[in-house]
Amino acid sequence: MNKTNKRREFLQKAFLASAGLIAAPSVFSKPSISPAFADQNSLKLGIAGFSFVNFNLDQSLAMMKRMDVRYLCIKDFHLPYNSTEAQITSFHKKLAESNVTGYAVGPIYTKTIADIDNAFNYAKRVGVHLVVGIPEIKDLAYVAQKAAEYQIRYAIHNHGPEDKIYPNATVIWNHIKGLNNYIGMCFDMGHNMRDGQDPLKDLLRYKDRIFDLHLKNVTAADAKGTTCELGRGVINIPAFVKGLRKINYSGSCSLEFEKDMKDPLAGLAESVGYFRGVLSSI
Amino acid sequence: MNKTNKRREFLQKAFLASAGLIAAPSVFSKPSISPAFADQNSLKLGIAGFSFVNFNLDQSLAMMKRMDVRYLCIKDFHLPYNSTEAQITSFHKKLAESNVTGYAVGPIYTKTIADIDNAFNYAKRVGVHLVVGIPEIKDLAYVAQKAAEYQIRYAIHNHGPEDKIYPNATVIWNHIKGLNNYIGMCFDMGHNMRDGQDPLKDLLRYKDRIFDLHLKNVTAADAKGTTCELGRGVINIPAFVKGLRKINYSGSCSLEFEKDMKDPLAGLAESVGYFRGVLSSI
Repeated sequence: MNKTNKRREFLQKAFLASAGLIAAPSVFSKPSISPAFADQNSLKLGIAGFSFVNFNLDQSLAMMKRMDVRYLCIKDFHLPYNSTEAQITSFHKKLAESNVTGYAVGPIYTKTIADIDNAFNYAKRVGVHLVVGIPEIKDLAYVAQKAAEYQIRYAIHNHGPEDKIYPNATVIWNHIKGLNNYIGMCFDMGHNMRDGQDPLKDLLRYKDRIFDLHLKNVTAADAKGTTCELGRGVINIPAFVKGLRKINYSGSCSLEFEKDMKDPLAGLAESVGYFRGVLSSI
Repeated sequence: MNKTNKRREFLQKAFLASAGLIAAPSVFSKPSISPAFADQNSLKLGIAGFSFVNFNLDQSLAMMKRMDVRYLCIKDFHLPYNSTEAQITSFHKKLAESNVTGYAVGPIYTKTIADIDNAFNYAKRVGVHLVVGIPEIKDLAYVAQKAAEYQIRYAIHNHGPEDKIYPNATVIWNHIKGLNNYIGMCFDMGHNMRDGQDPLKDLLRYKDRIFDLHLKNVTAADAKGTTCELGRGVINIPAFVKGLRKINYSGSCSLEFEKDMKDPLAGLAESVGYFRGVLSSI
């Protein structure tokens, strides 16, 4: 078995473990009177790496392990773009030890064709099948072509009213609807709301191209809104989660918690709990 | 107005504020698109003081404020039994500044009639209408009589299989069913489960005498079970919360988190989030 195959096998095992298919953690391995477990794992809960911008990988994984959250969208401050194969292998090994799978990379900003090539090469070397990114509009056709060539889907991130290129999901949809199915969006429901757009309606409308999700709530439905704990904002999360179930959403729901960023664990944990509580009850 | 009346007025204001009736916090005062707020406050979420056994009052209130949890069952390590009236006033003022109401005192262990007298005097001076306690069986009739005399309800706490006097709710029920309605129980659903008793069945069965609740989950339905985050244990919390709604439970649901007791915030916050998520969705 060559190195690439070994890494693929390793990643598969890590994925199966984190999905509870080959080595479930102790709390799930014993018979339980509660039917809630199955429900609360019916959607993949993850963390967007940016939530941990002020923490190194060990610190970030310690928080994830404590919350028992098993999917991470990888940011370059945790795994630099120029990482060697050995560094990438070591990175995945460390994640697996915390029962975490790195399922995607990004968000990655690109300005040129060369940047886009680098992003796909990085994703391929890391072994993920999803890139979250912010490309220039002129490069969208090239991105779609590269995504198909690499068999790595590409999800454009919307960033709210301050974002002059991709403020919301509808703008992205209009840019990509004529391109192949390898290009879609990482739907940031919070920034979409901050741009005055309804997160649930847009979820249902653009479901075929929503590859990833920044799960969050915000304090107001306009530019003044800021991220808050999942149950404390203006977005009706139970309704949104019902929507995710309705469309059989198979991507990750990754918390991007942009509050208390130097001490995010309490807010992240409250949000994790809220999401699981909703999933257990709807 | 004498001092007692002033304190009573102060307590009333603190209560109204914490119930959102006179001075709601900013997040609740603006129009919201989400109907979830009303639901998730339809039951009073609190913290049992013991969760903060390793923290002083300021540290404990900082955690409560961060989670926006507004009810505290007061332990003597935060407000000693021999506190002066000035100290009690200052204590309530500090709670109100964090939007917290001290709604009960205890658990208080008593061995003698004098201990019981002291407990009721303390509760009266603190200005609460509920004592959580663990009395000797020989003293139960006296406790019920004092409770009626003081118009302060008394809730006996069950402590699981290791507790030779009150292991579960049924044992308490059998001791108190012939006594007046001022004596009831602080239903510890976790210890009840650890004693092999069904929390939901016992909630419905003994609802008329359940004055307070230690909200928790446990890892196993026997003596080996230990407290865990609310969504991760063997008790089906959504079903239990539906039960609380069904009986129109008007007491507090106070998290007693006996895990990571030197660093409880993450586990408490996850549990708070889970409870709110369930309440928003059922």
